Amino acid sequence: MIVHPPAASAQGRHAYALRVYYEDTDAGGVVYHANYLRFAERARTEALREAGAPHAEMASLHGLMFMVRRVKVDYLAPARLDDSLLVLTESLSIRAASVELRQSVLRGEGVLAVLELQLACVRLADGRPGRIPPRWRQALALGWQAPALG
Amino acid sequence: MIVHPPAASAQGRHAYALRVYYEDTDAGGVVYHANYLRFAERARTEALREAGAPHAEMASLHGLMFMVRRVKVDYLAPARLDDSLLVLTESLSIRAASVELRQSVLRGEGVLAVLELQLACVRLADGRPGRIPPRWRQALALGWQAPALG
Amino acid sequence: MIVHPPAASAQGRHAYALRVYYEDTDAGGVVYHANYLRFAERARTEALREAGAPHAEMASLHGLMFMVRRVKVDYLAPARLDDSLLVLTESLSIRAASVELRQSVLRGEGVLAVLELQLACVRLADGRPGRIPPRWRQALALGWQAPALG
Amino acid sequence: MIVHPPAASAQGRHAYALRVYYEDTDAGGVVYHANYLRFAERARTEALREAGAPHAEMASLHGLMFMVRRVKVDYLAPARLDDSLLVLTESLSIRAASVELRQSVLRGEGVLAVLELQLACVRLADGRPGRIPPRWRQALALGWQAPALG
Repeated sequence: MIVHPPAASAQGRHAYALRVYYEDTDAGGVVYHANYLRFAERARTEALREAGAPHAEMASLHGLMFMVRRVKVDYLAPARLDDSLLVLTESLSIRAASVELRQSVLRGEGVLAVLELQLACVRLADGRPGRIPPRWRQALALGWQAPALG
Repeated sequence: MIVHPPAASAQGRHAYALRVYYEDTDAGGVVYHANYLRFAERARTEALREAGAPHAEMASLHGLMFMVRRVKVDYLAPARLDDSLLVLTESLSIRAASVELRQSVLRGEGVLAVLELQLACVRLADGRPGRIPPRWRQALALGWQAPALG
Repeated sequence: MIVHPPAASAQGRHAYALRVYYEDTDAGGVVYHANYLRFAERARTEALREAGAPHAEMASLHGLMFMVRRVKVDYLAPARLDDSLLVLTESLSIRAASVELRQSVLRGEGVLAVLELQLACVRLADGRPGRIPPRWRQALALGWQAPALG
Repeated sequence: MIVHPPAASAQGRHAYALRVYYEDTDAGGVVYHANYLRFAERARTEALREAGAPHAEMASLHGLMFMVRRVKVDYLAPARLDDSLLVLTESLSIRAASVELRQSVLRGEGVLAVLELQLACVRLADGRPGRIPPRWRQALALGWQAPALG
């Protein structure tokens, strides 16, 4: 069962709040399905920034960026105009040049969508894999990683 | 030069062509990852329309619509500004109230992304599952389904 | 000269802060020009909400909504990835069924874009003009209107 | 049935056809107002390409690009899901480093929106104004400009 922050943060998950505006919805009256990926990226960006490892510095200092290699989204219930949503982000595993994350989009205690992503760390210059620098590895591991034994 | 995969139509796949504009790209210089879902939906919409089963009529005649329940995207190579892309759509399986599709985004003969989706047929009135009407079932099965023997 | 809140609110303008994410940018490395309209609408929505007059209630209680009838945007300097922006909103004039607003997008003290909009109050049922209800008129006038004497 | 305004091409206007998909609409059931700017940019891109002056070559050969400096949109009637639209593009005036365009979005013979834009030709390197190269000047003047005598 998904729980709210602060319980969420105690479990090493990062929480990001957002509001649904007209731009996010479609003529079906709900949030357009592709836009959950936008919400999730905002949350990842802020999770890294708050952990002291903004992606802009990974680019400027190391010439590296994260790219989405794979994403799987389960849509459980629709979000609607004016909804106040929460995106919880947790890392599932961290490898040399990639990371697996789970992100959940919640309205109150109800889970609307669950995303599982694989992000690759790649070199800006040529798109080839690059090792995740220590500061970003640490941000991913300590700042919002799931369980101690993971 | 876009090469239409010769086997594509023979295998019952629908092809939809599109161009990449500034609106589709991001500051990384490539197509923003969420936008592949927009491309795929344009292709599905046209596939149904060309098979004589537009979604607007499914709504007006039957009070039903397709909703994305699950999507999995593998990003293999980035699309860029001005690219001319092709989206191939094929159905994998059809059940009473849902359908599984595979959609591939190609540039020339190179596959840039592969999407696998589960769409549910739901009632506009309450979002509950509804049986796919015969005309849409036929469009999904005959118009662009991969035949049983592959 | 445009000044920061709290000076901003003292002048009757509403301030809304936002961050630029990848989704907002294009391959030119800057915020895609159409997206300033999205930023501006987020700001208007929150301005009304904070003034106690959310658009959702205008719809549910009165069957009315605001529609953009005209917009003019001057782009002065580009916003970029990760920029922290402020949208200032002030009303210029209020009529029975429409309102004129000016919205400015700032980065620090620099003005990046200025929007002037005419919004019409229309009936959801048929799109015909409708009188702006008192609570919304008051929100527009007191909450964030520039005072009569400038 | 889309009727191509007969006088359109005779008057040197470029016509671009598009369909409205779910991604273009919002919970109000109509095309989201910012998306007319996306439609207009697709049309400008194709107008230049068809006139033999693609923007990609202006960047690669001359290090120049067009940027939107000002846009004014009048929204006359809403476009809806599945609408088949036409964007007409005509140039109003061409100066050394900028051009004024008018673009109209039509459904059948009805005009839904009119955009007037000022585009500046700027250097990719530093964003400073640059002279529009002859091929692009010619494309703007001959390919789709309204002739001097109207």
